[in-house]
Amino acid sequence: MERLPGFRDFYPEPLPNQDVWSADARNYIFEKWRAVARSYAFREYDGPPIEPLELYTTKSGEEIVGQLYNFTDKGNRDVALRPEMTPTLARLVAAHERNYKKPIKWFALPQLFRYERQQKGRLREHFQLNADILGETDPAADAELVALLIDVLRAFGLTANDFVVRLSSRNAWQEFFSARCADSAKAFEFYQIVDKLEREDPKQSGIKLAALGLSLTEVTDFIKAGSPTQELNAVVQNLSDRGLADFVKVDYNVIRGLAYYTGIVFEAFDKKGEFRAIAGGGRYDNLVKLISGGKANLSAIGFGMGDVVLLELLKDRNLLPQFDAKLHAFCRIEDEALRGASLQLIQTLREAGFALDYSFIPASSDKQFKRAIESKAISTFKLDRTPTGDLLVRLKNLRTREEMTLIPSEVGNLFRSFGAL
Amino acid sequence: MERLPGFRDFYPEPLPNQDVWSADARNYIFEKWRAVARSYAFREYDGPPIEPLELYTTKSGEEIVGQLYNFTDKGNRDVALRPEMTPTLARLVAAHERNYKKPIKWFALPQLFRYERQQKGRLREHFQLNADILGETDPAADAELVALLIDVLRAFGLTANDFVVRLSSRNAWQEFFSARCADSAKAFEFYQIVDKLEREDPKQSGIKLAALGLSLTEVTDFIKAGSPTQELNAVVQNLSDRGLADFVKVDYNVIRGLAYYTGIVFEAFDKKGEFRAIAGGGRYDNLVKLISGGKANLSAIGFGMGDVVLLELLKDRNLLPQFDAKLHAFCRIEDEALRGASLQLIQTLREAGFALDYSFIPASSDKQFKRAIESKAISTFKLDRTPTGDLLVRLKNLRTREEMTLIPSEVGNLFRSFGAL
Repeated sequence: MERLPGFRDFYPEPLPNQDVWSADARNYIFEKWRAVARSYAFREYDGPPIEPLELYTTKSGEEIVGQLYNFTDKGNRDVALRPEMTPTLARLVAAHERNYKKPIKWFALPQLFRYERQQKGRLREHFQLNADILGETDPAADAELVALLIDVLRAFGLTANDFVVRLSSRNAWQEFFSARCADSAKAFEFYQIVDKLEREDPKQSGIKLAALGLSLTEVTDFIKAGSPTQELNAVVQNLSDRGLADFVKVDYNVIRGLAYYTGIVFEAFDKKGEFRAIAGGGRYDNLVKLISGGKANLSAIGFGMGDVVLLELLKDRNLLPQFDAKLHAFCRIEDEALRGASLQLIQTLREAGFALDYSFIPASSDKQFKRAIESKAISTFKLDRTPTGDLLVRLKNLRTREEMTLIPSEVGNLFRSFGAL
Repeated sequence: MERLPGFRDFYPEPLPNQDVWSADARNYIFEKWRAVARSYAFREYDGPPIEPLELYTTKSGEEIVGQLYNFTDKGNRDVALRPEMTPTLARLVAAHERNYKKPIKWFALPQLFRYERQQKGRLREHFQLNADILGETDPAADAELVALLIDVLRAFGLTANDFVVRLSSRNAWQEFFSARCADSAKAFEFYQIVDKLEREDPKQSGIKLAALGLSLTEVTDFIKAGSPTQELNAVVQNLSDRGLADFVKVDYNVIRGLAYYTGIVFEAFDKKGEFRAIAGGGRYDNLVKLISGGKANLSAIGFGMGDVVLLELLKDRNLLPQFDAKLHAFCRIEDEALRGASLQLIQTLREAGFALDYSFIPASSDKQFKRAIESKAISTFKLDRTPTGDLLVRLKNLRTREEMTLIPSEVGNLFRSFGAL
């Protein structure tokens, strides 16, 4: 029986010659995401992986349904596997807004789903770091969020040579458009054209722009001029104060495809331009009110960073650590009379937080030694008795090849000296 | 807009006077589950939250569909939100068995779903620790798995006064039954009656047993005698060697409702009997072969432990820690001329792994101090300048009320002295 198309299995380590993802890699990414978000005083939240379909159509219109993993449940409810986290966030905040001091700084690590026509290798799910600040309109909040994005990527070892956050302003684009086209209903169409500018044939873009009464030249001139708004200047200055100026540039090519952005928008890219955007986000001051049906009216800014592009980029830059069982030791039981005492020592060491394995059944010394090496344990040991009957631990450090004899109570201290695995 | 019935929202901390769960509580449980499983040399895996419906009907028959959160997807596939992890595990192992040395020791932390008729407060999802050992029939593997279960519960502070693992043997029950009833097709029916014995009216149980040609007395006598099999003796002796004898007892009341168990079965209960089973599992040596369509033939033993009962029990025993933002400091910016320098210091400290918050906008000294206290930060500080223009940090430890003045480069060392938050 096969898994469903577009879904991933997560083996402990990546399968040989197969995809880059694995449970250990996912944990590695999640731990960094969490650690940096917490250092920024963001709190974690989550919601159900299934929500009422209406939560998404309210925000994005009925057109969105074509891309959703939606279905009718046994209670005849129209539901969808969540395609994004923002509507759930808005629902949660609106329901208990008064419990929380503003600004609210929250993050989540949801698995998100979509059901587009299947293309080879195209995934129907991914995990995402979602970070949002609600209830603060000052550009200082925008800067905090962009700084978090930068520091998350830096935590994986990526540098200013690897990536850049391109900052732009939806307001600047909105002003540009409304000065040239009176029909504000066409604004979203315009944003979509600009969003595709870098990927589309300029002739095509020119034709589409002409239909709105604009020329490609005036659009590209506006991008080239790149004259930052006051808001953008404030964000760049704030990031500069933090020592993060090298990681950002104002770039009006970025506009973001979605309709609901209201201020600063941004995307993080690898500098070689080999991958899709690593992360993207922006300010959406009207969305919480819309989704909550007016129950809560909170300004907001947020970003999402998926696990798939990030993992591919880290692999490409050789920044993924070795994933293995991370064992302090493999205990060899070569004398069955010492199995009970070995189990007791293993128990004591595991209780102290150390990771150990051993053979459940009698096996030759060679076989147990081989298994110790295959399991990538740092050390292997066996129990022995002195002529007077006292227990001794004969241990070999498999990294340094060093051999030593210890009393059982000293083993924990030795393991501690191995440091973090 | 409301969330779907039977699903949970996870706010950072539990909402006042509401349910016990929260994102922080979930992380707390997940971290302990992971830490203990890793110390036992178990590796983490995961699969998709949706699988082909057939994966579950193959194992449990068509009757199971009534309890599943199943639907037809847009590609006209019959699919289900996973109700349990074992079929996914069997699928994964069967697909790449040769990559893995036996025994395989794996764990997962899946969210599982069911769609039974909705009862008030009854959940349709929960999270579960699933741990399994595949490819080893020796009772030493059974003992290792039960030891893991015990140590997971102990890691939360639960003691032998709080819980006990009741060990039983499906083989013993099978022998008991086949000696008395020739129709082996009725065995599953018999197991179901025994499984309900402690909860059901004895008269009812008696009638049902009589229909199979058995008397309630011979069944209860067999339970009372509780004569352990050789296998159970081996498991108990092994656990005793580890010093875990106080946490188990042989108890033939346990039989487990599911059809596929083949050896030892067990359940963990709170000793006061106030909660449903905390965890349960057993040996299922034929299931991997069945689910994999014969592709892999591996003996197996596993257990599942849900987050809901565990969380209720920990709350009842006052064993849940305080969940808050865990901040090393709240930085007060009282002089806007020092905002840039404050941001720089905050950046340096966050990069060193410390968690800090501050006010995005100018606010009164009182207001910022109040916010520091509300955020439960351990300390609060502000920058100041010496007459010669050097930066100073004026810090107050909010736990000890101690006030001190440091140079900026000393703050990290002070935070380190706070220890784990």
